Amino acid sequence: MTAKSQKNWTGDPADLLRVGDGFRLADVDPDSTPGYGGGKKHGAVDLEAGADELDELQERLYAQSRTDATDASVLLVLQAMDSAGKGGIIRHVVGSVDPQGVALTAFKKPTEEELAHDFLWRIERRVPEPGFIGVFDRSQYEDVLIGRVRKLAAAEEIERRYAAINDFERRLTDAGTRIVKVMLHISPDEQKARLAERLDRPDKHWKYNPGDVDERELWPAYMDAYQTVFERTSTDHAPWHVIPANRKWYARLAVQALLLEALEDVDPQWPAATFDVEVEKKRLAAT
Amino acid sequence: MTAKSQKNWTGDPADLLRVGDGFRLADVDPDSTPGYGGGKKHGAVDLEAGADELDELQERLYAQSRTDATDASVLLVLQAMDSAGKGGIIRHVVGSVDPQGVALTAFKKPTEEELAHDFLWRIERRVPEPGFIGVFDRSQYEDVLIGRVRKLAAAEEIERRYAAINDFERRLTDAGTRIVKVMLHISPDEQKARLAERLDRPDKHWKYNPGDVDERELWPAYMDAYQTVFERTSTDHAPWHVIPANRKWYARLAVQALLLEALEDVDPQWPAATFDVEVEKKRLAAT
Repeated sequence: MTAKSQKNWTGDPADLLRVGDGFRLADVDPDSTPGYGGGKKHGAVDLEAGADELDELQERLYAQSRTDATDASVLLVLQAMDSAGKGGIIRHVVGSVDPQGVALTAFKKPTEEELAHDFLWRIERRVPEPGFIGVFDRSQYEDVLIGRVRKLAAAEEIERRYAAINDFERRLTDAGTRIVKVMLHISPDEQKARLAERLDRPDKHWKYNPGDVDERELWPAYMDAYQTVFERTSTDHAPWHVIPANRKWYARLAVQALLLEALEDVDPQWPAATFDVEVEKKRLAAT
Repeated sequence: MTAKSQKNWTGDPADLLRVGDGFRLADVDPDSTPGYGGGKKHGAVDLEAGADELDELQERLYAQSRTDATDASVLLVLQAMDSAGKGGIIRHVVGSVDPQGVALTAFKKPTEEELAHDFLWRIERRVPEPGFIGVFDRSQYEDVLIGRVRKLAAAEEIERRYAAINDFERRLTDAGTRIVKVMLHISPDEQKARLAERLDRPDKHWKYNPGDVDERELWPAYMDAYQTVFERTSTDHAPWHVIPANRKWYARLAVQALLLEALEDVDPQWPAATFDVEVEKKRLAAT
């Protein structure tokens, strides 16, 4: 991690939050702040510093893609239960990057056209171009999460999808995409408080959907489905990260740190001129 | 305009910058700052205040679109000579809005597929959905600007396009879209200085294209083409605004002010709940 935004981290968030062998979602405390030694106040300062770093790295990534033969891109995949803070991540972390370098897709309930194709069809169409940070607000994983919990497909089909996702993601990473998969993990009590706030505030009513309570009643089934997702699809090329998210400030910092690491891994450089600079200076001067 | 960001405006930027009868591009001084009484420093403070206003108005617009039958959206169309500051507008004005409410399209040189269709085909596909601020970085106007200057189409075809654009925009505004058309106007000298800077700084080389000098040599032809665009397509339903842009801080403030006015004209409200709030509180409490 880079200098400014790293100083309050006591460990590498990518390592601490990565889903490895033997991971159990039930063991993650949604209130915890793994690896971060500062509190909420330091968190806000560090988020600001990280925003500048992210913005510059993204601009380099974009610049490099315009002239070089590099195919590097970054794809952030966000999954979570309702009200866990995906929107806040997009607003406060992704929103600090120049919009010209971001490709955001919010996957909703599939349309009839989408359902007529394989589940990865609509996903493939939204894969980021080189130079971009792609963001998936929900993703291919809906098809093995709600798809499994609500039995929207046959068991064999759900089973087939895990390997299909791994193959798909392998193809993306082989082509130069760094995939950052994030599950924001809140507790049922925290969700209850957040949904209650949406009901209490008229300016938040539009964010509330009665279906949220129906989903909430299936919490244990969703946690099982997530656990299976982690076991089946946390791969070397595209590992999952589970981010305790009861504290919004921590979740934002952690996702920012993961994006920074992905970009630092690309290590994009300002590309060399593809023209003769001195010749161009003369041409320009003559106008 | 709203309270905070308006205090240093001595006139309404929408009125002052609008292209009306008898408008002559040659009479606009690219160094001027029409209607703004503050300087660069006040401009930065006002831009910050305006960013918060814009962000809230956009969230209301989005919220309203999720539950009501409103089809309101905003479409910002940006046109300019190279280096006039479109990118800065997107980064600093559009970038202050939640990315979840923005749909940005950068129109490049048309692909073969796009060329095989009418010129408005690719434009139509990127019209913003209700609730969104759409941004066109270049637009349908390229087809009557470079299209005319470089004779990329026959004269009769260019001629046909002005009316086709007016009809197209009329259909959009009838359907609820506020169209904000902006030309950022810099002087040839200012462009020369900005291109020279791109040549001087290795981290800016990627932004420079030798073709920029070729286009620059056609400056008078482009100004003629813009003048014709203004005369033919600055309509009551979708007027043009020419923004003096030698001072970047002014151009950003002015575009922000135009967006704020468009959103205030929509006057989006937090939508009423589409469910029984008390019933939902009980349902939630029971979980």
